[in-house]
This record gives sequence, structure tokens and C-alpha cells, in this order.
Amino acid sequence: MTTILPRKDLFVLPEDIIYLDGNSLGVLPKAASDRALQTINQEWGQHLIRAWNSAGWMDLPRVVGNRIARLIGAPEGSVATGDTLSIKVYQALAAALKMRPDRKTILSDSGNFPSDLYMAQGLIDTIGQGYRLKTVTHSEMLDAIDDDTAVVMLTHVDYRSGQMYDMKAVTEAVQSAGAVMLWDLAHSAGAVPVDLAASQAEFAVGCSYKYLNGGPGAPAFIYVRPDIVADIQPALSGWLGHAAPFAMEHDYRPAFGTERMRVGTPPIVQLAILDAALDVWDEVDMADLRKASVALSECFIEEVEKRCPDLELASPRDPALRGSQVSFKFENGYAAIQALIARGVIGDFREPNIMRFGFTPLYLDLDDVRKAAQILGEIMDTDAWNDPKFMTRAKVT
Amino acid sequence: MTTILPRKDLFVLPEDIIYLDGNSLGVLPKAASDRALQTINQEWGQHLIRAWNSAGWMDLPRVVGNRIARLIGAPEGSVATGDTLSIKVYQALAAALKMRPDRKTILSDSGNFPSDLYMAQGLIDTIGQGYRLKTVTHSEMLDAIDDDTAVVMLTHVDYRSGQMYDMKAVTEAVQSAGAVMLWDLAHSAGAVPVDLAASQAEFAVGCSYKYLNGGPGAPAFIYVRPDIVADIQPALSGWLGHAAPFAMEHDYRPAFGTERMRVGTPPIVQLAILDAALDVWDEVDMADLRKASVALSECFIEEVEKRCPDLELASPRDPALRGSQVSFKFENGYAAIQALIARGVIGDFREPNIMRFGFTPLYLDLDDVRKAAQILGEIMDTDAWNDPKFMTRAKVT
Repeated sequence: MTTILPRKDLFVLPEDIIYLDGNSLGVLPKAASDRALQTINQEWGQHLIRAWNSAGWMDLPRVVGNRIARLIGAPEGSVATGDTLSIKVYQALAAALKMRPDRKTILSDSGNFPSDLYMAQGLIDTIGQGYRLKTVTHSEMLDAIDDDTAVVMLTHVDYRSGQMYDMKAVTEAVQSAGAVMLWDLAHSAGAVPVDLAASQAEFAVGCSYKYLNGGPGAPAFIYVRPDIVADIQPALSGWLGHAAPFAMEHDYRPAFGTERMRVGTPPIVQLAILDAALDVWDEVDMADLRKASVALSECFIEEVEKRCPDLELASPRDPALRGSQVSFKFENGYAAIQALIARGVIGDFREPNIMRFGFTPLYLDLDDVRKAAQILGEIMDTDAWNDPKFMTRAKVT
Repeated sequence: MTTILPRKDLFVLPEDIIYLDGNSLGVLPKAASDRALQTINQEWGQHLIRAWNSAGWMDLPRVVGNRIARLIGAPEGSVATGDTLSIKVYQALAAALKMRPDRKTILSDSGNFPSDLYMAQGLIDTIGQGYRLKTVTHSEMLDAIDDDTAVVMLTHVDYRSGQMYDMKAVTEAVQSAGAVMLWDLAHSAGAVPVDLAASQAEFAVGCSYKYLNGGPGAPAFIYVRPDIVADIQPALSGWLGHAAPFAMEHDYRPAFGTERMRVGTPPIVQLAILDAALDVWDEVDMADLRKASVALSECFIEEVEKRCPDLELASPRDPALRGSQVSFKFENGYAAIQALIARGVIGDFREPNIMRFGFTPLYLDLDDVRKAAQILGEIMDTDAWNDPKFMTRAKVT
């Protein structure tokens, strides 16, 4: 049984807001607060330390990992949850470099999300020994892989443009050049169909606070291809990735399978909220979701281009090459986004000139999208963005 | 103004339970669930992405860090929060090794909490190049420091015995041998007075789910001595430790001060709960807390030794050498702890034979301690632990 989208009744949607920023922080699922209260008041408050067993806390990272696995085409037991996406990037890169000891280059997209590049730089700086990070543009990527490339780290859907790599083709090219493939699914999980198993990629990582609606700072996830996981010696070898955490052994022995990618004590309250947020996905067919997503973004592009000649599409025009987001370039994009927010349409701005809009079919419909385009048209027609109050940069945009 | 201890009215204390496991997971502060609901329903639900500014989410790790700083004798701005204790150990060790490039040894206590040793092993394995972890016993520690020792990593209060290192004296010895000092304050923060500034230690790390009552998987913290932080290039160089996270620069530039030890997007719900849990500490004088803690543990030792000749004290007898916990050795300790829990006294067991009891003066009084000792005495008198139902090991003890 699949759900007819959208399912607005399952989410808290503030009145007079059209939320096109679910690709940055997804909205609150109605089930989240009750689950948080149960975890806090019943489990923590009443069971106390016993809740690690009685309330299933020890298993929660695995349970949640398996629910995410289904959404990204990964087999049961292949996804571990916890920590942040940056930490998971580090774990995957460190493991990938160990798999190709004679190669010294991490190759990535120069437009990749900065934290992925920063974590690579930190890892390289920690190891030393001639390792380097090389970045090239999307179009230069395949030609840039050479016999020094240990691992290629790419974000499947570009955070600025929404441009989507062909996961299967790129993975094949990377692996045929002898390198290891790491995909960042931050803008893919819950947004577009992903078939990790079919791609044969060795690693994938992602976060759960965007399309999966896990809440601010929700736990991240990491996928390791099952046939290689037994050989991985985790760099971040924490006690909950140990084969027997409570045996309190002196030496690290990795746990079975992807469980070894766990590190420290997991954030139980946030995992419980994420688990509640994942309930809605049990009935979602990713092909249906993709259809709805494309319809929303096609409609938005058409309406915006009709109304706003000063905005230039910064995303691929072919929906097959886009994720579930659409960006437009505008020199005064920062102010225009602030003007939009002031009128109840929440999108976001990304340096240097990108107005970004995410389309989350679980709680957006075509009327929302048309209305958002109409308000954007009014702002552009009247230069409403040209107001000092929209020019001041806040800390987070 | 200081609080007269205990302040049981501020906590949820389940009926018919005497909780001597606050050193593993502290009880629920009454303020926590309202704060969680505010964060979830108002901030996330209504403000959505705007809450990073409007609800102060971006600043929350720093705000919480400053509140913890006061409890461990650290200056404002010197403590960053987030991630897990294991991650913070890795960050501190990686930074320490960079400070002493000619030295290859991490020295630690063979009885240190395993995850600290595991993280050191993972770091060494990542770097390679002849680094090693050397562990010795508490009594051998000072003699084991040599001119290859880059960093000494010690848990201030031993998780099994409760034995406490003299922070100032040990730090002085370590530094006079040219090594860097890293303290793990897992069983110290909120348990015993700590004066990091006076100790001159370079690094300290800790968790907040024990004596600080931050809840299961609450965020960890890291202290870096202010005069050295500007030279640290973080190994885990995530975007929220960048000088300008939202400038989306290609290259990592560390943020000012200890903020550079932040990594990825912080767990906002758990940070908010921890912030609420820290409210009670604003009125607590650590010297008063220590007095109450010693009174509780002295009473417990006296009562248990009077009633239970088969139990052997596994903690230092001198309270000045103990943290806020007391352990007894007993061959059938696991079963005895289960029998205690079945009668409403929650302590915990640590391999191989340690019955461990934590004393949290915020919500325990002398009557609790006497009653717990009495129940333990009854169990030992009647061999009530000698029951198959108490012998089966659960996953977490």
C-alpha cells in the first residue's frame, strides 16, 4: 500500500507559511513530540539506566539505520546511525584510504558541500604522508580520476544547484579506475530514489534533518557495502563500535558488520524523534515521491520564469538531472530571500548568489508552489527586496 | 547564594527506587521535558529553519559550554560542546600529538575507560608512522613518562574504583617531562571540584549524561587551554568549527578559540535538554557538593562494611582520594547487583567483579544511603543473589 501524496495531516505546518526549505531543515512530524515525551518522561524518567535494555535504546541506532536503509536501496544491517554527517564523512574517507594504500588522492567536486571538503582536509592533515585533496568541477570529474585517486567523494545532489550525478555510471567509472566511491546523500535521502546496492558504491553517508524530518541536529548515517565491511578497521573506534562494549576489554575489536561504524553513546532522544519521523516513510513509494517532486519543481520553474525575467535558472533544466530542489541566480538573492521570508515563503540563500527552493512532496502541493511563485513574482515586480531591512546578514541563512 | 543539598524537588525520582547509578545516567530534571517540548513544538515546529537565529540554536553549544566551564574551573569561552566523549577524546589526542611531533607515545592508565583507549588505538592506526599507545597502572604512571611521551591521557576519577588522580600534581609532572596533559572528566564534572585553570592542563573532555543529568546520549564537551588554542588545527575540521561556516569557503579556516573544536550540526534537542538540566547548577557551590558527596559515601562504606563482610572495598578508603562513587569487589557481583535492582536499589556492575555505586548529592540523602546499605545487607545475609534469574547477563549492565 502506498500513500497518496502529500500527507499534510502528518505534519505541523505553521499557518501562512509556504515552506520551501525542507531541504535544509524538514518540518516537524506530528508524532515527534509525543515520542520525545515518552523517551524523556517514561523511559529516562522512570526506567533510568535500565532503559538501555527495557526501552530498546541499545538497539535504536540499528533499528533506525534499517529504516533509512530501505529508502536508499541498502540491505538490512548495512546502515549505522549516530554522530553528524561530518563525522561520518571522516569515517568513510579514513576507511577508503586504508583500502588503497598506494594511492594518495581524495578527489572531490569543487562545489561539494564545504564540510565534506573540510573533513577531508582535516584527515589528510592528520595522516600527513603526502596525501592530498584534489577538487575539480562536475564536468571535469570523470577525466580527473587517475591512478593516484584512492577515493572519489561526491555529493549525489549538489547543495547549490540541485544537479544530480548519475550514481551508477559514476560509481562504475570510479571503480574501473581502481578508486573507491563515497556518496554523500544529504540532499538525496528521502528526496530522490537511490539504489545503493545496484550502484555497488563502497560507502555512502547522509543526514536525517532534511527530507527525513528528523529535527535540528538529528543523527547522521553511514552505509558500508556488506562485502567489504569485515575488513574495515574504523578510525573512530569508539566503544559502541566494539564487538563487546560491556566486556570492557583493553583492546579494540570491531563489532560485526556496519555496527563497527558506531562510535560513542548515541543521542537517544534525537534518535527516538527520528524513529517517529520515519513512520510516515513506511508507506511511501519512492517512485511516487519522485513523480510528485518533479511535478512540483517543473511547476515552480515554469511559474517563476513566466513572472521573473531577472532570475536565471541555476539548476539543470532536465528534471532527470535534478534532485528535489531548484535554484535561481540573482545578484540580490540574499535580500530577495529575506523579502520572501517576510511574506511567508521560506526558501534559503547560498553564497554567492543562489536562491534555493526545496520541494518536499510529503507536505507540499501544486497550490503551494504556484502561490510561492506568485509572491516571488510580486517581490521582483516591485523591487520589494530593495529595502535596507532585507540586506543585513544574519548568522545563518 | 548556594543551594542546601539535596534538592530532590527539582528532579523526577521514581517511587520505591534508590538510584545509585547517577554516575552512569543521571536522573531526569523536572525542567527537561518542558524545555524539550518548547524546542520541538515552538522552535522547530513554528520557527523552522529560522530558529537557528531566532531561538539561539547557533549559539547554544557555546552557551552550554560556558555553563559547564564554570563547574570545572575553566574560563568563559574555553569549552565547546557537541558530539560524544569518544569523538572529543580523538580531537584532543590528535591535537596533542601535533604539539609534540618528535614524540610518538600516548601514555594512559591500563584501567582507563576502554573507549578512551580504543579511540587512541584508532587514531594511531590512522596516522601510522610508529605511534603507539602505552598503558600502565595508576601507581606506575609517573615513572612511565619518558622523552617519547607526547601526551598523557587519564580519567580523573577511575570508572571502576572511583580512585582520583591529583590533577594538579600529575599535570605538573607530565608537563615537566615535556608531555601534554589530557584529562577525561566523565566521572568528575558535577561530581567533584575541578580547577582546570589552576592545573594548567592543555586539554580536558567529558560527558554530560552522568552527574550533569543531560539525558541519554547528551552532548560531550572539550576544554582547550586558551593560550594554546590558536595554534590548533583540528583533525575533525567540520563546518561549524570553521571561521565563517556560511561563507561556504572551499578551504578550512579554524574558528576563533575553542569554537574550532565544534564539528557538524549540533544536536539541538539534546543541547536544549542539557541547558535546562544545568539550571540547577547555577546555585550549587562545588565545595558544598563535595562535602555532601563525602558524607554520603563515608556513610555507605561504614554501613556496608558493618553488614556485608563478604564485600571488599575496591575504592580508596581515604575520601580525599575518591570521586563521588564507591565500589566493592564481590565474585558474584553481577548477580548481587541484579538482586539489588529487583529490590529497588539501582547500582551497576563493571567487569570483572565490581559493584559500583554513585553518590549524587543533588538528589540523594543519608536516609537513602542507609536504606540502600540495609537492603544490600539483607541480600548478602540471605544469599538472595544466588538465584538463576539474577545470573543472566543483559546487554547493558
